[in-house]
Amino acid sequence: MYKAPVEEIAFTLKHVAGMADALDRGLFGELGDDLVDAILAEAGRFASDEVAPLAEIGDRQGARLENGEVRLPDGWKELYRNWAAGGWNALTANEEFGGQALPHMLNVAALEMWNSGSMAFALAPTLTMGAVEALSAHGSPALKDKYLARMVSGEWTGTMNLTEPHAGSDLGAMKTRAERHDDGSYRIFGQKIFITWGEHQATDNIIHLVLARLPDAPAGTRGISLFLVPKYLVNDDGSLGARNDLFCHSLEHKLGIHGSPTCTMIYGDGRHGEEEGAVGWLVGEENKGLACMFTMMNNARLAVGMQGVAICEAATQKAVAFAKERTQGKAPGWTGAGMSPIIEHPDVARTLVTMKALTQGARAICFACAHAIDLSHRSAGEGSRHWQERAALLTPIAKSFATDAGVDVASLGIQVHGGMGFIEETGAARYLRDARIAPIYEGTNGIQAIDLVTRKLPLSGGDQVRGFIAELQGIVAEVRESNAEGFGTSAARLAAAIADLSVATEWLLAAQGEGRVHEALAGATPYQRLFGLVLTGSYLAKGALATTGDGAEQNRIALCRFAAENLLSETAALKDRVVNGAASLAAARAILA
Amino acid sequence: MYKAPVEEIAFTLKHVAGMADALDRGLFGELGDDLVDAILAEAGRFASDEVAPLAEIGDRQGARLENGEVRLPDGWKELYRNWAAGGWNALTANEEFGGQALPHMLNVAALEMWNSGSMAFALAPTLTMGAVEALSAHGSPALKDKYLARMVSGEWTGTMNLTEPHAGSDLGAMKTRAERHDDGSYRIFGQKIFITWGEHQATDNIIHLVLARLPDAPAGTRGISLFLVPKYLVNDDGSLGARNDLFCHSLEHKLGIHGSPTCTMIYGDGRHGEEEGAVGWLVGEENKGLACMFTMMNNARLAVGMQGVAICEAATQKAVAFAKERTQGKAPGWTGAGMSPIIEHPDVARTLVTMKALTQGARAICFACAHAIDLSHRSAGEGSRHWQERAALLTPIAKSFATDAGVDVASLGIQVHGGMGFIEETGAARYLRDARIAPIYEGTNGIQAIDLVTRKLPLSGGDQVRGFIAELQGIVAEVRESNAEGFGTSAARLAAAIADLSVATEWLLAAQGEGRVHEALAGATPYQRLFGLVLTGSYLAKGALATTGDGAEQNRIALCRFAAENLLSETAALKDRVVNGAASLAAARAILA
Repeated sequence: MYKAPVEEIAFTLKHVAGMADALDRGLFGELGDDLVDAILAEAGRFASDEVAPLAEIGDRQGARLENGEVRLPDGWKELYRNWAAGGWNALTANEEFGGQALPHMLNVAALEMWNSGSMAFALAPTLTMGAVEALSAHGSPALKDKYLARMVSGEWTGTMNLTEPHAGSDLGAMKTRAERHDDGSYRIFGQKIFITWGEHQATDNIIHLVLARLPDAPAGTRGISLFLVPKYLVNDDGSLGARNDLFCHSLEHKLGIHGSPTCTMIYGDGRHGEEEGAVGWLVGEENKGLACMFTMMNNARLAVGMQGVAICEAATQKAVAFAKERTQGKAPGWTGAGMSPIIEHPDVARTLVTMKALTQGARAICFACAHAIDLSHRSAGEGSRHWQERAALLTPIAKSFATDAGVDVASLGIQVHGGMGFIEETGAARYLRDARIAPIYEGTNGIQAIDLVTRKLPLSGGDQVRGFIAELQGIVAEVRESNAEGFGTSAARLAAAIADLSVATEWLLAAQGEGRVHEALAGATPYQRLFGLVLTGSYLAKGALATTGDGAEQNRIALCRFAAENLLSETAALKDRVVNGAASLAAARAILA
Repeated sequence: MYKAPVEEIAFTLKHVAGMADALDRGLFGELGDDLVDAILAEAGRFASDEVAPLAEIGDRQGARLENGEVRLPDGWKELYRNWAAGGWNALTANEEFGGQALPHMLNVAALEMWNSGSMAFALAPTLTMGAVEALSAHGSPALKDKYLARMVSGEWTGTMNLTEPHAGSDLGAMKTRAERHDDGSYRIFGQKIFITWGEHQATDNIIHLVLARLPDAPAGTRGISLFLVPKYLVNDDGSLGARNDLFCHSLEHKLGIHGSPTCTMIYGDGRHGEEEGAVGWLVGEENKGLACMFTMMNNARLAVGMQGVAICEAATQKAVAFAKERTQGKAPGWTGAGMSPIIEHPDVARTLVTMKALTQGARAICFACAHAIDLSHRSAGEGSRHWQERAALLTPIAKSFATDAGVDVASLGIQVHGGMGFIEETGAARYLRDARIAPIYEGTNGIQAIDLVTRKLPLSGGDQVRGFIAELQGIVAEVRESNAEGFGTSAARLAAAIADLSVATEWLLAAQGEGRVHEALAGATPYQRLFGLVLTGSYLAKGALATTGDGAEQNRIALCRFAAENLLSETAALKDRVVNGAASLAAARAILA
């Protein structure tokens, strides 16, 4: 059973991702080390003791649609309410509406643990937090007053309604329409698919944020507006009014995250409500809906990245525990009686250490991204702009590297379990089933790569990424200076990997500068992985350097060395694909005809 | 819907894997080109038109245990009977018992197509063929006379009973026991798990081959005997007699291959049968049961490799079709109206071409392995020994590379489908769920790697693998000589990859020679993948060289170039892991404590 790795998380937050420094500088107000530890410990306890025990039943029963209502798995309604009652939904929200205004770093750390407990469950708060963020940034004072406090507290959940059957990654193709109403409200008509936690009975109301198109809107993405559409209308005294004209038409039958209801939502077909159309209110300005969504995009993508980290951690814990218990054969050098635990077999050990390294790397990247988001909010002027860029640069890497790692590590975890891994009751397979959506939603990892190469590399004329690479080179210098024997050839390996990253970066910037966008995009995914691997090595080194004088230090150094000497060797191939791969891909394109 | 790639398969068999030469030399008797094509076409038709349409219902309904009997998915009983009536079970078996004595190459090609149609369904014949093979090689004349003809025809299916809860990869830990009976028969008592198609109603009888231990057997793997244990006893006139004392206790709830009943079998608990214990007959000699199993190991492992190829092909077909239909966004350079098909996006094209290359590579490796098996049976003296070694060397690579590719390609296929890939009705997720068992059963891919490094590399003092590598270098020379422009840098890339393979091979041979087995095993999995990648590149080149003067030639050259310039770059990292990776793995071992 999953046990939240509270100490490891705290260490990574503080000493790898930059929280210790931010605390020292008072950027997080009165927040101190002790409170951070206490919050993490309690979030971890809730994840381990409350969430994780209900994950399996959630997977097995799934969310079910019965008479138009979604029935959650046994115990989940109470679980959600206990979670909200713990104040967890309010960690980062503004104090004005009951939030605790704590750093995002703390929130993503807690999200990791809840997702390790049950990714399907943690999706509910993840979506609500996104809706809170969009509403906080763009809602009118009246809308905020009416809705925000109860969303911040978690009394009501929120959803994001973007996708339609023919408008997934390309929201410009959207057809859901909105009509202006005399009283300043709007009426929404249309169908939305893949709406996470779109309907359920855990809360009295559900606040839908819906993208739709006004009759006179420009075509494409510049003609999309964002609306708040509650399941139940809310009277001015805060009491619930009539049922709004919207409902959950069906639930998807999915590979994983069974406990999370993935709804097809119908707005304005007249089945519910007192008048025609689903009543909604504009959030932000007309036709500026996409900009409102983009506000929360970094956080949402990072939250999905945390799902990847969460699965990595849980799958690794499970595989390590199994490999210690399960005995088969005799490993070379095994002198014990009978068969050896399979963890003694070098190939199994390689698998498990690889899982550990990917987990730690993905976690550090995501926490560094959260740190950048925090500092962008808590710095002034140039500093804010710098950290905004850093967050923007890190977001696609955090999302893609962590979610790819989630799938890979979950799959390795099944492999470690042998035949038992294929049996659902073992639980290892669920991690793979759950993990598999994360590289897809909130922008597929291929789209993250396009975003990274075409929008993020050019930030500040390329100087944001160059500055970041220079920082990584600084870590290499520290490894060299440390002279700690355990690092082996880490410094040289890491330096070579960073050089690969630098070459690939300059090549991509030049290609785009010269209008060879097609060639740059051909290498976008290898580049994105290259960046993630380099960061994994760099952050493992940073963690090793930050530890002193005990077994933990030796372990961190050893993990860094393993990553440097066994995983980073891939960077040369990835760089080569970026720099030399486009021509053969273009030539091979005809094969697909 | 899956359409069997009959032409591609025929081409690969004949011109890449060596069948054309073998036909020319008359090694396959009167078998000619036309008959090969006709058999492949009909096997493909059956796979596409009969098997594939029942795959989805098989997955959804699964096999169910009802009142001690296994109920197959709707239509599967008839499907099996039609399949057997087509004579498909008898392709390779001896003519003495009704077999057609056709090459294994033809059988694995057909297996690929049936597995593409439904891997869960194709498991039934796969297991029966294994049982036929073991019985043919080791059964007494009396046993063969009584059972073989009806197993060859497929009138009865066969099973292999190896695994027990604490004896999976390590069969020495087995506890099922056998007692000698006065009449020369035996009585079997024990529990076996993970028995594929262990119980069903598609045939009147099921012939179980069961490993068990005699009371006076030596400990470990040298004390295991093989028994034939029929579900119904067979009278001397061939009619069915009493029910034997064995039954299916339960079915596993698995990640995939739902239509295939995975049974826990109980032998000799007295619930059925007229006397105590399940009645069985010895196959081969007492305590030599494992040797009997090893006889069929190469074929069984190759058959699992074909499952990997089959999933690759089916998942790729599905993804390519989707990517041509689905429109989203505008790819760079897209000049059509509206959104472009996603296949136009470079990242999607890269994914699809990668899937194609892995599929073709895995197929060619498996067919080459089947060719080696065929020639080992159909050559004399030194030739037979050579091909036996070649088959032995290729088997772990074929099994592991193809099954890893199956998982990777199925996962990429989901990714191409975006959100729809996560929805079960789409069908892309089933491929991943089915594929995930193949790297595990018939010896995990980690065990294949141990086998490759410790048993196969040392064959003929290392000269078998060295000779093979020299052959691959010959392909490079041909690419160089061909001077075809489309190859790009293929020759140089391939030469470098083969050099990596050669260095890693010599290092592993030396390490073992010097007693550093632990270090050799630490690199076994990277080495195995390195070998598979080099073979992929080499066989794609061989196929390209064998085609002349049309669009197909250009396509083959382009795919070879893509593999050479985009996939083979990984070999340097893999070699490095073999040669330099062990020390850091050993140092990191403490992390797992």
